[in-house]
Amino acid sequence: MNDRIRHAGLRDKRMSAENAAALIQPGMTVAMSGFTGAGYPKSVPQALATRIESAHARGEDFRVKVMTGASTAPELDGVLARAQGIELRLPYQSDPHLRERINAGDLHYIDMHLSHVAQHTWFGFFGAVDVAVIEVTAITEDGHLVPSSSVGNNKTWLEQADRVILEVNRWQPAALEGMHDVYYGTALPPNRKPIPLLHPDDRIGEPWLRCDPSKVIAVVETDAPDRNSPFTPPDATSREIAAHLLDFLAHEVRRGRLQPQLLPLQSGVGNITNAVLMGLGEAGYRDLTAFTEVIQDGMLDLLKRGVVRVASATSFSLSPAAIDEFLDHVDYYRERIVLRTQEISNHPELVRRLGCIAMNGMIEVDLYGNVNSTHVAGTKIMNGIGGSGDFARNAYLSVFMSPSTAKNGAISSIVPMASHVDHTEHDVMVIVTERGIADLRGLSPKQRAQRMIDGCAHPDYQPMLQDYFGRACRESFGKHTPHLLGEALSWHQRFVETGSMRK
Amino acid sequence: MNDRIRHAGLRDKRMSAENAAALIQPGMTVAMSGFTGAGYPKSVPQALATRIESAHARGEDFRVKVMTGASTAPELDGVLARAQGIELRLPYQSDPHLRERINAGDLHYIDMHLSHVAQHTWFGFFGAVDVAVIEVTAITEDGHLVPSSSVGNNKTWLEQADRVILEVNRWQPAALEGMHDVYYGTALPPNRKPIPLLHPDDRIGEPWLRCDPSKVIAVVETDAPDRNSPFTPPDATSREIAAHLLDFLAHEVRRGRLQPQLLPLQSGVGNITNAVLMGLGEAGYRDLTAFTEVIQDGMLDLLKRGVVRVASATSFSLSPAAIDEFLDHVDYYRERIVLRTQEISNHPELVRRLGCIAMNGMIEVDLYGNVNSTHVAGTKIMNGIGGSGDFARNAYLSVFMSPSTAKNGAISSIVPMASHVDHTEHDVMVIVTERGIADLRGLSPKQRAQRMIDGCAHPDYQPMLQDYFGRACRESFGKHTPHLLGEALSWHQRFVETGSMRK
Repeated sequence: MNDRIRHAGLRDKRMSAENAAALIQPGMTVAMSGFTGAGYPKSVPQALATRIESAHARGEDFRVKVMTGASTAPELDGVLARAQGIELRLPYQSDPHLRERINAGDLHYIDMHLSHVAQHTWFGFFGAVDVAVIEVTAITEDGHLVPSSSVGNNKTWLEQADRVILEVNRWQPAALEGMHDVYYGTALPPNRKPIPLLHPDDRIGEPWLRCDPSKVIAVVETDAPDRNSPFTPPDATSREIAAHLLDFLAHEVRRGRLQPQLLPLQSGVGNITNAVLMGLGEAGYRDLTAFTEVIQDGMLDLLKRGVVRVASATSFSLSPAAIDEFLDHVDYYRERIVLRTQEISNHPELVRRLGCIAMNGMIEVDLYGNVNSTHVAGTKIMNGIGGSGDFARNAYLSVFMSPSTAKNGAISSIVPMASHVDHTEHDVMVIVTERGIADLRGLSPKQRAQRMIDGCAHPDYQPMLQDYFGRACRESFGKHTPHLLGEALSWHQRFVETGSMRK
Repeated sequence: MNDRIRHAGLRDKRMSAENAAALIQPGMTVAMSGFTGAGYPKSVPQALATRIESAHARGEDFRVKVMTGASTAPELDGVLARAQGIELRLPYQSDPHLRERINAGDLHYIDMHLSHVAQHTWFGFFGAVDVAVIEVTAITEDGHLVPSSSVGNNKTWLEQADRVILEVNRWQPAALEGMHDVYYGTALPPNRKPIPLLHPDDRIGEPWLRCDPSKVIAVVETDAPDRNSPFTPPDATSREIAAHLLDFLAHEVRRGRLQPQLLPLQSGVGNITNAVLMGLGEAGYRDLTAFTEVIQDGMLDLLKRGVVRVASATSFSLSPAAIDEFLDHVDYYRERIVLRTQEISNHPELVRRLGCIAMNGMIEVDLYGNVNSTHVAGTKIMNGIGGSGDFARNAYLSVFMSPSTAKNGAISSIVPMASHVDHTEHDVMVIVTERGIADLRGLSPKQRAQRMIDGCAHPDYQPMLQDYFGRACRESFGKHTPHLLGEALSWHQRFVETGSMRK
């Protein structure tokens, strides 16, 4: 008896990854599972890359369009990028090899709000989905699918794809069963209804993904870990940034603008937000909630200690040590964690209703509060906007954080004009660097600029920013948002030419 | 018997505009009614401006902070700007005198998403609201207020202000009573609930504004028209833009991506959208719906002819001729028009649920689809973002329209890099000029650029754009979003220096 593939008909469709990959043809649109290095297919993409390399060696063209939940791993984006097998990629990536290809101009990449992906697929904006390749933990007797460590867009991929390839990954804990909440109440306009979620831990759906067995063309068994990297303790700069943000939150509580339980937290991924989460634990907060995209080690720790009461997300991205902790106390965590589809985890309706505190990283911000989350020097994509726009636009508080400099001081994160804008001045409330905080709420552009220079900029760049701002206030064409157009992007140009924004 | 002030206690608070204005002190935050030249107070602001001018003549400082629904009229923004009486203005304006002051750097202006204003006030981000000055059509026996030609933020102003001044405007048709729907189900997080609106014409609230009579410090009677300008028939360029958009919508219907009744229409204000509305009528559409901000002449005409079945908005901005038509058939229109608060008319939850077709104007768009709605040459504010972001981000289709050139060809609306970004590449689907259309859905940045050049740019600027794009593709630092940073804003700089973007 196969305890992971409990449906007889689907058990009969087992085959090797190579045979499954052979069912994917050049030019197809392939929708895969995966969100933040969790729950992506582990073997079919690699077999597909091998198949593509052979085709290329024979002089044949072979590329596919690849859609996912968000970022994946070397076994998916990495191998397909190296095989030059991707024609179009969306909606997010963070793989070094794929990034290099994109920035060389070798393939098309569409950087999207993560809450838009499912509905734009349903709207038909990307054309037909030929094949879905979905990792699951198990298949039930009824043919329902137990999701693995992320849900992402899997519901949509399974419904929209003509054919389905399943990877059943024995490495994924069987205990994940019951943690997911897949909402089947979505519809196309004009038939949409309110989403009946009032609290971060409300369960509004089913623990499984529905799947028409007749669409399944292959079931591949795997036993391979997610891209789990060991947890890195926050560095000094991250802890300083976190300390400023925690001071600010405490101030908001004292002013009565936040309750002691705050509001549902959304936090991006990385060192700074880990430092913030650690800081919340140390500051004595209790019974917080999270309505976010990814549950990482820091969040698991807060759940363990009761600092966070419940956490909603779409992905579960843990270090090996945290996975052991999770498995040792799986019944405890199953009551406190809900994994949803990303159209629900990131839904504007829910982010605004719940009043999330959105905390995200950034590449740079300009004097007036326009945030660049994606492009180095306005042209080179880093990862993508991800869910930051879904949350920042609709949040109770939208916070963006970064060290005040990068590359050993060669880059200032506070610039005269952002070289690319992902979050406009209308969507940005609070900026934090290790130097301090700029609370931009209720401020006009020129007031914001002075706060940014005084509160957030690095001392090495403060005089340059003050000089620019002063001259712009005197000489700008219009003086609502003063700029000197001839030098607004000169810092970036200098960086491209000399490797430093410094004069 | 005063048929417009039917509440005895409030009848006793009648006084002159001068006496009411004397209750407003320097430095106060004054929240006024008004949205798109409709429903703004007609006499207290003018009396306040006179009072301010006298104070200034005596050498005293006197300025106030002014919050509204959106744009008002010469009798509010105009007189207060000329009196140099505004310290801070939000969230939108379109007055030439006020604009001039803002762009001279004389006062602070905060340009906001219109759906954010009420909640940011409730959140306490703007501090206390000292006085509300609200125009109403009538006061009922119970002290409820019959809104006038716009609802805007009036519910929030009445609830949040310490004191209330009412202007009862006899010019506003008594027949407006019953057309409004004021939703009292909003709350602060974490107590928010789904907004129970499923269709554009659902009534989910009450026809009156609630008001605590004890907060009312003055009632002023007026009899003055809204800022109604005569309707201008669309010019040839607007009709060309509309024709391209109508072709596109017809194409979407043929492809099955839209039903023949389309989806609820949102349209900005102006000549181009009037041409689109006229075109919808001529193209044979029936039973359309509108979920929008402002009902103008064009919409009234479509309602009359059954092209549009129902229209939801927050403001009613009609020409004198259209007002006559409205009054002649007021019972017909009362069944087909709902006026709501602007937090509901523009609510992201509802715009996404209903799947609006958002059609807005713009100042410029860059090759990659970043739209500037607000700033000429990146520095000089025109009006503001208004509701365009509320709608574009959450719409089923987000369309931005403009003639391909401005100022007799001296300005290209398609530029290498937007000099200010209000709608990022992530939020913009379709661009239309009189030259044609660029459908950007499902396209990567470089694909978008070529569509924009081929489909939308003016022939005078096409070679310059193609030259820039070609060189950027070869020489850009990163080639995901190719730019030459040294010349990305050079077109705007040339315009500032020479009055033309042409070389």
